[in-house]
Amino acid sequence: MARPGLVVAVSLWCLTLASSPCATASSPDWCRLALPLRAEVSRYRPIVNRVLQYVLHGPYKGRTWAELARFTDTFGSRLAGTANLEDAIDYVTGKLRAENLDRVHGERVEFTGWQRSNESAWLVRPRVKNLAMLGLGGSVNTSSEGIKAGVVVVTSFDDLANKSSQVKGKIVVYNQPYVSYGETVVYRSRGASAASKYGAVAALIRSITPFSLNTPHAGQQRYSDGVRPIPVACITVEDAELLDRMYRRGIELEILLKMDSKFFPNAKSRNTVAEIKGTTHPEKIVLVSGHLDSWDVGQGAMDDGGGAFISWNSLVVLKNLGLRPRRTIRCLLWTAEEEGLIGAQAYLKGHKSELDKFNLVIESDEGTFQPYGIEFHGSKNAACIMNEIAGLFESINATKMVLSKENVGSDIEVFENINIPGASLLNRNEKYFWYHHTEADTMAVEDPDSLDLNTAMFALISYIVADLFVDLPKS
Amino acid sequence: MARPGLVVAVSLWCLTLASSPCATASSPDWCRLALPLRAEVSRYRPIVNRVLQYVLHGPYKGRTWAELARFTDTFGSRLAGTANLEDAIDYVTGKLRAENLDRVHGERVEFTGWQRSNESAWLVRPRVKNLAMLGLGGSVNTSSEGIKAGVVVVTSFDDLANKSSQVKGKIVVYNQPYVSYGETVVYRSRGASAASKYGAVAALIRSITPFSLNTPHAGQQRYSDGVRPIPVACITVEDAELLDRMYRRGIELEILLKMDSKFFPNAKSRNTVAEIKGTTHPEKIVLVSGHLDSWDVGQGAMDDGGGAFISWNSLVVLKNLGLRPRRTIRCLLWTAEEEGLIGAQAYLKGHKSELDKFNLVIESDEGTFQPYGIEFHGSKNAACIMNEIAGLFESINATKMVLSKENVGSDIEVFENINIPGASLLNRNEKYFWYHHTEADTMAVEDPDSLDLNTAMFALISYIVADLFVDLPKS
Repeated sequence: MARPGLVVAVSLWCLTLASSPCATASSPDWCRLALPLRAEVSRYRPIVNRVLQYVLHGPYKGRTWAELARFTDTFGSRLAGTANLEDAIDYVTGKLRAENLDRVHGERVEFTGWQRSNESAWLVRPRVKNLAMLGLGGSVNTSSEGIKAGVVVVTSFDDLANKSSQVKGKIVVYNQPYVSYGETVVYRSRGASAASKYGAVAALIRSITPFSLNTPHAGQQRYSDGVRPIPVACITVEDAELLDRMYRRGIELEILLKMDSKFFPNAKSRNTVAEIKGTTHPEKIVLVSGHLDSWDVGQGAMDDGGGAFISWNSLVVLKNLGLRPRRTIRCLLWTAEEEGLIGAQAYLKGHKSELDKFNLVIESDEGTFQPYGIEFHGSKNAACIMNEIAGLFESINATKMVLSKENVGSDIEVFENINIPGASLLNRNEKYFWYHHTEADTMAVEDPDSLDLNTAMFALISYIVADLFVDLPKS
Repeated sequence: MARPGLVVAVSLWCLTLASSPCATASSPDWCRLALPLRAEVSRYRPIVNRVLQYVLHGPYKGRTWAELARFTDTFGSRLAGTANLEDAIDYVTGKLRAENLDRVHGERVEFTGWQRSNESAWLVRPRVKNLAMLGLGGSVNTSSEGIKAGVVVVTSFDDLANKSSQVKGKIVVYNQPYVSYGETVVYRSRGASAASKYGAVAALIRSITPFSLNTPHAGQQRYSDGVRPIPVACITVEDAELLDRMYRRGIELEILLKMDSKFFPNAKSRNTVAEIKGTTHPEKIVLVSGHLDSWDVGQGAMDDGGGAFISWNSLVVLKNLGLRPRRTIRCLLWTAEEEGLIGAQAYLKGHKSELDKFNLVIESDEGTFQPYGIEFHGSKNAACIMNEIAGLFESINATKMVLSKENVGSDIEVFENINIPGASLLNRNEKYFWYHHTEADTMAVEDPDSLDLNTAMFALISYIVADLFVDLPKS
């Protein structure tokens, strides 16, 4: 998944309000960080150099990519609720144990799973054309004969409202332009409900992407309360445009849609946990995370194999280098993120008593492309410290610090929502949504050097925050 | 299709050998064009302005795109040998007649057609994974149970030779890197034969493309004489890399390949012809062309709907503006290009007696992206004239002239091979092979303004060459 407000897509205010733009880590005017604290952060410079040397040029070079490749090549996609995901979790758990990380274990999560079966969409009038498609997570099925119906093409919710009188008994095709993921994904998540309100029998949504090679994108959707649930799938940008052109010419279109899937009311999975236990404040937590589950298309290499693997590899790097901080670094490999942050929500519920000990929650779920800094969500005082830390990444050109008004993760938003500071890496993820939730989410997206940079930065940010004399201030 | 030596891929020598590079149309040192001829070419400037005004800003603006969209939306892919292509040819023929072009007719072509039926490839060991694939044109079938066999992955013909002792009874997977279309397409065209020589039972070729979203590419292949024909298909870049990684790890791979297709020994189609008959030398010909057939995936909008449509629209533009040149401009919309220039070869055979009257053959089969000049294959003396003509396209930044040592077209190569000058447009087709022979060859690739520029340039180049006082010199 990806949070709607992903940094490629939304406006963020930059920490550096003075003349110098946020490309450098020079302190902004309003940062009045006590000199001893600035000095303390700068004292981590030798550790920064040591970790970067070890991961970028030393024995760990290329290892995150190699581990991720072996993992995704072995298991492929890892839909929550499948035995394949559980096997994949066992495999990673074994890795974490073999690395002698602390307190390696799984924490049970229960949920209603969903799994696609046979599905297809065909334009049958005025000509026969297969429409590449992916049923959306949580969609209801058609009958086995499918739904054959006329078509109304709309380009927005407003356009749907204008054409509402024509919609009854029809399949609504959304050909909304792509603006940004955050602004456009509402058509995927709410398009079926909006169409059903006017009596549509199914909805086909143009995939949420700025670029397509006739590529359908999967994703989750939810029915609004009180509307009749109708089958809903994503089709390709190209086919949505084709249908729109034909519709505008006044051609009567008919589509045959067949969708079959199963719901599993008592699906079980696990969040996977490993730690480097803190020396003096083991009860205080810096959490570093990604999700192990994926959609059922592609190989889940980018979303979110990369994020999960830089998370646990960052702990292995620290362990190998004997770097044990004052506080505990806890690695969380979430499950069932794609179905709606189910693993993270279960974790929050199960760990209420210790949440006040959480100093920082870190996540990578927006690509592990070349990083160029830190995105942070929290207080300005905490941001000033993060800014100092970002300044340590000069040698890898990753000193940018952006203080976001919004959540900076998907799973970790459950923590951010209760005022726990959140962080992720800024990375060159301009093409993230080309691959997102498609068959093209494979190892071809992942670059060994970029993964090394991500692993090293995750190791260093979590280590420094976990080791500082002061907690990250919440206000 | 695309000729292997497409300009994006091969080194060409530039006409302008002097200090000024070939970006301008200034005459090269060795061009000693007689002043009256230079003056004559420059006298076409008002006509150039008139045609550009009419197509880019006047009543014809956007029409090529609109015509092409309506055509591809109506017919979709147009595989040679299908009724759909014949319907599409009827449709275009009707258009040409409605425009009152001269001598509109079809010329019969016979050939052995090939049509894919059900096909699939699955990795079945060590895990089950669908491999997106497209059987290659002319491939033999598997039995209905398919071929289940172990796998040898190679990265080149040399690598295949090194591993030849392991190949017997196996499926050979080619994971050759993409260098250029011209250099890499030999794996598609000859990979099956090379593998069969060592006893392989089937071959799977990494698709010939620099970029993929798990996109399989179709194409033609040919068996060498004397080898046992084995089934052959293209798989995706991503899957070829996946199989290669697993193979290198020593994992035993097994693939189940099922392919079914039909050969039609007596398929019939037509080359489509229209003319603007010359005023004083109607027997002399400037030919302007593209092919109407396509592969059976995608919509054939780029390959080669665009090329065919700028060809016939360029005649309509001239007709509408009352521009009738001294020589005849003949529009040829080839058939069965994808199966190996079958329409063009039949045409050559049927028109032997008039070939000495052909002044120039023009083709567009490498995309109708933004044009920036002319690519020419012929004598230096002719090139000097083409250079003068290119100079007329200053206002649209399309003055570049490249004299190619190789053929500059696919269909027209049959004419170029017998010393008839050939020309095509240079255009910004860097991404051509992203879409080539895939489901992504749709109207989304085509841009209205670029199509206008292509149509206008085709109209003007063919008009000026057809109208000059001198024939284009062959030596």
